[in-house]
Amino acid sequence: MSVRVALDAFGSDECPAAELEAAVIAAREGIDVALVGDAEVLATGLEALVGEGAHGLPLRIVDAKERISMDDSPARAIRSKPSASMPVCFDLVKQGEADAVVSAGNSGAMLACGLFKSGRIKGVDRPAIVSAFPTRDGQCCMLDMGANAECRPLNLVQFALMGAVYARVRQGRPRPRVGLLSNGSEPGKGTSLTRAAHALLEEAQIAELEYLGYVEGKDVFAGDVDVAVTDGFTGNVALKFVEGAMGLVSHLLRDSVDARLVRKVGAMLARPAFVALKDHLDPDSYGGAPLLGVDGVVIICHGGSSAVALANGLRQASNFHDGGLTSEVAQSLAAHGALMQAAKDTE
Amino acid sequence: MSVRVALDAFGSDECPAAELEAAVIAAREGIDVALVGDAEVLATGLEALVGEGAHGLPLRIVDAKERISMDDSPARAIRSKPSASMPVCFDLVKQGEADAVVSAGNSGAMLACGLFKSGRIKGVDRPAIVSAFPTRDGQCCMLDMGANAECRPLNLVQFALMGAVYARVRQGRPRPRVGLLSNGSEPGKGTSLTRAAHALLEEAQIAELEYLGYVEGKDVFAGDVDVAVTDGFTGNVALKFVEGAMGLVSHLLRDSVDARLVRKVGAMLARPAFVALKDHLDPDSYGGAPLLGVDGVVIICHGGSSAVALANGLRQASNFHDGGLTSEVAQSLAAHGALMQAAKDTE
Repeated sequence: MSVRVALDAFGSDECPAAELEAAVIAAREGIDVALVGDAEVLATGLEALVGEGAHGLPLRIVDAKERISMDDSPARAIRSKPSASMPVCFDLVKQGEADAVVSAGNSGAMLACGLFKSGRIKGVDRPAIVSAFPTRDGQCCMLDMGANAECRPLNLVQFALMGAVYARVRQGRPRPRVGLLSNGSEPGKGTSLTRAAHALLEEAQIAELEYLGYVEGKDVFAGDVDVAVTDGFTGNVALKFVEGAMGLVSHLLRDSVDARLVRKVGAMLARPAFVALKDHLDPDSYGGAPLLGVDGVVIICHGGSSAVALANGLRQASNFHDGGLTSEVAQSLAAHGALMQAAKDTE
Repeated sequence: MSVRVALDAFGSDECPAAELEAAVIAAREGIDVALVGDAEVLATGLEALVGEGAHGLPLRIVDAKERISMDDSPARAIRSKPSASMPVCFDLVKQGEADAVVSAGNSGAMLACGLFKSGRIKGVDRPAIVSAFPTRDGQCCMLDMGANAECRPLNLVQFALMGAVYARVRQGRPRPRVGLLSNGSEPGKGTSLTRAAHALLEEAQIAELEYLGYVEGKDVFAGDVDVAVTDGFTGNVALKFVEGAMGLVSHLLRDSVDARLVRKVGAMLARPAFVALKDHLDPDSYGGAPLLGVDGVVIICHGGSSAVALANGLRQASNFHDGGLTSEVAQSLAAHGALMQAAKDTE
């Protein structure tokens, strides 16, 4: 049976147009998509997009009149708008009518839905958002990218295990190289948080991953690690700095009015390469950021996601479901009970 | 009287050649430079570099046989090698024979020398390393870049004041716009540390700066703030992520073997613009990172600094001495005793 994904049709900035198009792309590839949102609007939109062509596709519409906006307070929104498109997606999974959720809506509300509707995998203290950075020869995934601004050593240790499972399932790395993000590679560097997590990970000698100790940005982009572990505050700040720097480079290349002609021509010619690179640097373009540690496949897409990005999110959901990501995470955590206890004992 | 700078001649990776060249460049501009290091080696090097030309320049050599290496433990090194070139630079300031110190050596040892030899400005809890990022129309300075991996709200508040003084002295901003780095702009974001600092800065309504609340990487690079305040762990990680991303972009542009010809040609032509940009993004190329909060002008240059970067560091030292950076910082902190007390009371 093919995977069934609940897609929040009123999540992205371009909703529901981007979601409708993404759903059609994914459905044509055999992914069963439930479009969740205002049924009338969605039926009209689907008709306009593919007309009669929709009939043969594994597509259905699930009505949900309300919508959680980007401005809504996450915790309040999921209580006050239980029948909004996003929480209804999670209800479908709960009722056994879908296997995964994809949304480009309010990411805080996605986290809240993941926590309170999907629930955490047994043994997981805090779920984490995982994203990926391009490297010289592939990708490095990093977590947490913002779900938990404040973390304990236990959380970082669990992120290392979950990130390694993710790199195995997603990139096929048999024994992912895992590093702990720090302000220098020497063991004396870091904070009390990173030093405690470092001691635990080094002591544990985890068979299914290669722990490399402290790493920095250069190691991430050089491709020296497959997984970079950090707290959600640092991860989020680092991601946004890179995005900001790339935006500046793009702006300066475009607007380098005082550059010599050869530079101007060069910049113009290089723009396609640069735009491709910028897309490559943008986690969006290859889908979304999974929420690891909740009981089910949950993909958080960027609000500005295009139909292509959302379609990639649907494919990701399908791959992670088929790859058994959730059960692999559960197994990994269950296998390291002693390490979890040691982490709790440090507090 | 012109400023007198003590230059650690055995700091950089290319020492003492880079330091000798930098000293000659600065001395020709009227900066009085004391080259500190092995006198014999320095005299021979200077002779080879400028021959008789050195006689008219405000250059002198101060003998210091030992050297603190990059691998030395900072705290131990300044105790076990008191007569190494770096601590001798600070001794010259202490003895009234120099006004400022510049070194591209072990930055931890520079911090330790700053703390224990220069001492902190009255009222300063922790000195901070300040660096600058390029923006669309200028620069945004950021602190702390790594001196203090763990901070208290008091430290962030002091960094805001010191950063504002720095932006005034360096960039001539009468009322610098100051932001607090966070994982989102909403006040509910951040950590207990940033929320406490935010409440203090918002409440204080500091006349000499415009406090803009939480900012992210995009605000920094767009030039929406003049000063970005953060703890040394986050600042250092963010800086190294940007450096790593720029390194990757540079690598990919160079080695895009599978790119279409037009892209390849474009990338080749754009390289000068890109290299210029990369230099611009590299804090090194415009000097070093001042250590703010110590009693004296202290400039920490990158280990890989070229002679040009070191000469810029010497110019910076001269400008900050002439601009009264240290006394301005002292005055600013003295003027905000109530805020400091409020910050301490939150703990």
